[in-house]
Amino acid sequence: MAIALPAGEFRGIDESDAMFPGTLGDLIAEGAQALQAAGERLASGRRIDPRSVEWLPPLSAPGKIICVGLNYVDHSIESGFVPPTYPTLFARFSTSLIGHGAAIRRPEASIQLDYEGEMVAIIGKAGRHIAPGQALSHVAGYSIFNDASIRDFQTKSPQWTVGKNFDGTGSFGPIFVTADELPPGGKGLRIQTRLNGEVVQNASTSDMIFDVASLISIISEAITLEPGDILVTGTPSGVGMARKPQLFMKHGDVCEVELEDVGILSNVVADDVLSAQAVNQ
Amino acid sequence: MAIALPAGEFRGIDESDAMFPGTLGDLIAEGAQALQAAGERLASGRRIDPRSVEWLPPLSAPGKIICVGLNYVDHSIESGFVPPTYPTLFARFSTSLIGHGAAIRRPEASIQLDYEGEMVAIIGKAGRHIAPGQALSHVAGYSIFNDASIRDFQTKSPQWTVGKNFDGTGSFGPIFVTADELPPGGKGLRIQTRLNGEVVQNASTSDMIFDVASLISIISEAITLEPGDILVTGTPSGVGMARKPQLFMKHGDVCEVELEDVGILSNVVADDVLSAQAVNQ
Repeated sequence: MAIALPAGEFRGIDESDAMFPGTLGDLIAEGAQALQAAGERLASGRRIDPRSVEWLPPLSAPGKIICVGLNYVDHSIESGFVPPTYPTLFARFSTSLIGHGAAIRRPEASIQLDYEGEMVAIIGKAGRHIAPGQALSHVAGYSIFNDASIRDFQTKSPQWTVGKNFDGTGSFGPIFVTADELPPGGKGLRIQTRLNGEVVQNASTSDMIFDVASLISIISEAITLEPGDILVTGTPSGVGMARKPQLFMKHGDVCEVELEDVGILSNVVADDVLSAQAVNQ
Repeated sequence: MAIALPAGEFRGIDESDAMFPGTLGDLIAEGAQALQAAGERLASGRRIDPRSVEWLPPLSAPGKIICVGLNYVDHSIESGFVPPTYPTLFARFSTSLIGHGAAIRRPEASIQLDYEGEMVAIIGKAGRHIAPGQALSHVAGYSIFNDASIRDFQTKSPQWTVGKNFDGTGSFGPIFVTADELPPGGKGLRIQTRLNGEVVQNASTSDMIFDVASLISIISEAITLEPGDILVTGTPSGVGMARKPQLFMKHGDVCEVELEDVGILSNVVADDVLSAQAVNQ
């Protein structure tokens, strides 16, 4: 685990080191003080070359991955929906997650692999029936997601689950920024997706229909939120499916999602050849 | 953990006992031999009075809870859908799970609490791109689910997630039966739901549109299945929402789901008064 210091330097501590403070999931479960203390300890760890490490998702198996669809007006319209009056929620399973620098996998079953740049809010404190005014105190921090979607599978049935859960399509990370370092609710941050360097999505997180506090309040009317649960807060307009002509990702492409004051999540795209091996472990 | 013996007797071993063989999740991850050995050990454990114990779900936090909608022709039609050509999948989060004997919680937010009796297939062996002919070798065993649904929340947006994930609405258990004790794919078993003793759903698991082998093969085209993942295979016709007049569950009701050769999952219904306490842990 490593910390990014203001000078652009990374410092960290290996899991094998006795000083290892725990995973981010452990620390979030322990609370804000543990996170703060770990940050201080990591800052005195050894220098890390970010090009020499494998980046894992900040949390490898969140208790819940709750994704929000149609949460920007323009994207809702480009997708053929009326902007919603209640959030559209779907789930990802952790088997779909990959980290920064790993390949987004284009399955053999489809060429309709689309990008979706999104801000992630990570829950730090459990609760149910959380009032909007209390909601942001339940957020530990923020990160970035590329909610890559297999469009034809997303619409093979009334529910989007399969198209949102192909292995190796949910890129998450690399940086986790604690909530105190950002505007309340992560509002007003520029979010931009670039495919092979070309800007394909460009918006402000203030354009969300349901902001982070509203999402937490509405979701927790039904569902207990727990530390380490993540909210993937929706994508702005510009997805490849809605373009004319349509623009899907293919082998060798590079897709970057940049969230202001949080960082850049970058992935190559690689054809998935798993089926040739028929994995039956 | 306990085993049901042919004589109707239960025997088991406490977690605090040195002989405790592990949780069902541990054993499924270890494989069929571990399950078999644990069964033998449990059979020589102390006698358990099933009325004196709290029944937990067989797995408290499955890696994935993959639910199948519209998987019986009659239910698909009563719900206003054309019978599907591809399975309709949605997810539950483990925060919604309860065990046999616990109360299904009717939230303050809605009176539209509906029952859905279902067979569960529990994955025992990991795999992706699993051929239909190999699929049943990936099943560790079967259990029962009451996929209680909050109907108005299920249709507040295009995705059913919230209506399927209220806390205390996913009843699971009590018995796990290993696959070798049942017909292949759990086919041909009578499944019946009773509300206050009246039969409200009554079908055969052979009526499923996508059988267990097909589900595993289709899902694993996209998603790696892992030991302990569960497939909640869909409900037959007779749900309360589709009745005239509609029939929803209320405080004090008793809902039972019986699956032939597996057992009976029984729950009372209780009004949820959580919001009065505004839980902000």
